[in-house]
Amino acid sequence: MSAYDALMAFQRETEALGQIAGRLGWDQETVMPRGAAEQRGEEMAAIEGVLHSRRTDPRIADWLETAEAPDDEAAAQLRLIRRSHARATKVPAALAQRLARVTSTAQMIWADARAADKVADFLPTLAEVIALKREEAAALAQGGDLYDALMDDYEPGATAAVIGGMFDRMRPRLVRLREAVLAAAAPPALHHHFGEPAQLRFARDLASRFGYDFTRGRLDLAVHPFSSGSGNDARITTRVVETDPFNCFYSTIHEVGHACYELGIDQDYLLTPLGNGVSMGVHESQSRIYENQLGRSPAFAGWMYRQMLDRFGDFGVASPEAFARIVNRVQPGYIRTEADEVHYNLHVMMRFDLERALIRGDLQVTDLEAAWNDRFAADFGVAVDRPAHGLLQDVHWSAGLFGYFPTYTLGNVYAGCLHQALRGDIPDLDDHLARGDTSAATGWLREKVQRHGGRYEPRDVIARACGFEPNEAPLLDYLDAKFGALYGL
Amino acid sequence: MSAYDALMAFQRETEALGQIAGRLGWDQETVMPRGAAEQRGEEMAAIEGVLHSRRTDPRIADWLETAEAPDDEAAAQLRLIRRSHARATKVPAALAQRLARVTSTAQMIWADARAADKVADFLPTLAEVIALKREEAAALAQGGDLYDALMDDYEPGATAAVIGGMFDRMRPRLVRLREAVLAAAAPPALHHHFGEPAQLRFARDLASRFGYDFTRGRLDLAVHPFSSGSGNDARITTRVVETDPFNCFYSTIHEVGHACYELGIDQDYLLTPLGNGVSMGVHESQSRIYENQLGRSPAFAGWMYRQMLDRFGDFGVASPEAFARIVNRVQPGYIRTEADEVHYNLHVMMRFDLERALIRGDLQVTDLEAAWNDRFAADFGVAVDRPAHGLLQDVHWSAGLFGYFPTYTLGNVYAGCLHQALRGDIPDLDDHLARGDTSAATGWLREKVQRHGGRYEPRDVIARACGFEPNEAPLLDYLDAKFGALYGL
Repeated sequence: MSAYDALMAFQRETEALGQIAGRLGWDQETVMPRGAAEQRGEEMAAIEGVLHSRRTDPRIADWLETAEAPDDEAAAQLRLIRRSHARATKVPAALAQRLARVTSTAQMIWADARAADKVADFLPTLAEVIALKREEAAALAQGGDLYDALMDDYEPGATAAVIGGMFDRMRPRLVRLREAVLAAAAPPALHHHFGEPAQLRFARDLASRFGYDFTRGRLDLAVHPFSSGSGNDARITTRVVETDPFNCFYSTIHEVGHACYELGIDQDYLLTPLGNGVSMGVHESQSRIYENQLGRSPAFAGWMYRQMLDRFGDFGVASPEAFARIVNRVQPGYIRTEADEVHYNLHVMMRFDLERALIRGDLQVTDLEAAWNDRFAADFGVAVDRPAHGLLQDVHWSAGLFGYFPTYTLGNVYAGCLHQALRGDIPDLDDHLARGDTSAATGWLREKVQRHGGRYEPRDVIARACGFEPNEAPLLDYLDAKFGALYGL
Repeated sequence: MSAYDALMAFQRETEALGQIAGRLGWDQETVMPRGAAEQRGEEMAAIEGVLHSRRTDPRIADWLETAEAPDDEAAAQLRLIRRSHARATKVPAALAQRLARVTSTAQMIWADARAADKVADFLPTLAEVIALKREEAAALAQGGDLYDALMDDYEPGATAAVIGGMFDRMRPRLVRLREAVLAAAAPPALHHHFGEPAQLRFARDLASRFGYDFTRGRLDLAVHPFSSGSGNDARITTRVVETDPFNCFYSTIHEVGHACYELGIDQDYLLTPLGNGVSMGVHESQSRIYENQLGRSPAFAGWMYRQMLDRFGDFGVASPEAFARIVNRVQPGYIRTEADEVHYNLHVMMRFDLERALIRGDLQVTDLEAAWNDRFAADFGVAVDRPAHGLLQDVHWSAGLFGYFPTYTLGNVYAGCLHQALRGDIPDLDDHLARGDTSAATGWLREKVQRHGGRYEPRDVIARACGFEPNEAPLLDYLDAKFGALYGL
């Protein structure tokens, strides 16, 4: 067996074990009995231990030294294995274990602090997480920028300098748009009850309509919607609020975007490094274009409106135009995950600046609440009313996910680029969407982006799909045009 | 760290990984998307590979050599680890992985073949499974009996010679009883529709009533009811036939017996070798005594009768006595899992003989259907009408579980012994059962059997609980007495 074949056989088992760890996460969030939580902690630690020892296995270095890639795809496989191995071996095992232990505890402390609305309960453990993440970043950066080293886990090749510059260009246009929309008449609130079984039936239909393959996935309920798994088993979850059906419907479409990316990857890449979405930013580009540019387009909303009349009867919305404004409601809110397309990126930019300052050491956790609240008041024009609506709202920092937030906006920017290119290639897209038919769009995305998996670097796969270098202009133009038309600006 | 502590720390992770493999099995049978089957095969192979390499880790032999057990329980831990290590080191890793992969696929093929009623679709993969199991048996037996070597996985210490002898003593008395009952008037058939939601609600209530802890388990639907997992996550499944509610109710009670065994084990044994049921025979003793000696006792049936009147209205059964005869209906049927207490062991004896012949190589899969059908006609007096009622009915062979079937009858024999001892200790048991209260009985079983987990050898734990050596007489006496009274023999 050649070194390349031996390495790939070893890697295939590692990928399969990684899938298992993902499945356990799915189980934990959907079906696990609550009395099993402590035992599950030991199970997760055991499989993570196995994965870590495989990723740092010294044979990988030997194989990499002599492996010859028979073709470009194989070269891409080697590139990803080399990166993962280098990453794993740079972090001392003791540090990796301490991080796993501390972030596991920190997430529980965070959940309790959020429930009790007590920032002070969370800050000591957050300080500990940050200290460990800085230590990890130093090990990874080897003299380079700490934050960039952390971001590399989620968005290979991204740098804070480039992203920060882009964010600075985006902010004024988003603020201008926000102010214009908020000055216009707001759409009326919904006052209707949408039963759970009917919501879930429509959610399943929407999932199928966006190309989700239920023979290789499933839809369940979870507290926080997520997608999980890849290859031929990519599952999604949603949640139901009986007064707000769009929570369920658009969470579903969003997670379908993530799952379709995984399910759309070339089957030849199954259980190889190329067989996973290439980055969090590209992943988010798929979920966001499904959810927003397609699912919240006035054309598709018109189809949804008629469907909802059939399924729920008269729910107090008079026209497809009014319906389109409701699913594109713009309002300043405290919570990032509930934010509209105009506000969403402002949430992300704020977290990006704060977490960079935390990792640089320029901001101490004792000053974090004041920094958060000042910035929120400045960017959103309202004061944070309680910590659960402020810095305690997101799980990310307790889980050690520093450098993750900017990938959300990067995903939106990529979605904007892809949407522009898609409209260029399929000029009559709205006619399809108005019939509830997304197949032209999702087929284009599968062909241009999804099937490649980890084959190209994140920016490259977007550039190849679009025919231009990814940049923020298409997203901002799209937002101006869409909200301008909806709100008569 | 002492050698004993090091070994136990290592073993704890192995146990946790073993739980993960079990959870994947549960997932596969209940919620996994069909299109994930092939990928799941690789995942199972990967985790089995990890488990195999841990079970054969050369450090175990070193630790075992110097480990000193601080007490009797520790000595029992070492005994089980020694046995598992010896077993694992005899089977080559490549064979273990091939078996995992082939049996995972074979189970899907079996399910399709059963649904399509096509034996031919299943035979090639069955032949492959048998070839691999014979190879495994040869590695394990090292010159000894192949079938005994396989059976040892499920019932340590059992031999086909001893079991076969016992079966030979049982058969004439069972046949005599069967003929007497069949000559008596059969209870009337049910002609009522029992809706799935109401069946599942009652099944959940029955599970709780038999002591099942839903905070450490869950009840789902599956084609073939099973229980899965141990420690604090032991899940059960059932199935629903809307014309025959007893299928669901007694499957549930049966699986509750299995799960309560696991959940009842001393928490000090969690994620250690002692933290699992000691054998399939002892496991089956718990499921069968819950299902039959308790659940189908005339006393408990009286309580169930009144419950079902409340839940389903008049379902055409006039009295608790008539109801008791219906839940203890004796009729020659095709399906083992639906067989009454009189016929059940005859099904097992038939499979025991056939699978011994398959493993010996005396019977080829091409001749299996004829062999099955001939034996069935001879033992049960009717011809098999279709393969799904014949050799395609059980999952076991597709899963590679050769040597498993006899443990069902061994479980019945053990249940007979435990039931005799239980009645001796709790003379007014029927008064409890008539109130629908199983707690005295299930408490006795938890104290006498379940809490010990793997602490004593299978026959020993039964002998300690009963105060006598396990044998078939109590079961046969119980069957004669119960069916004699029910059918006025």
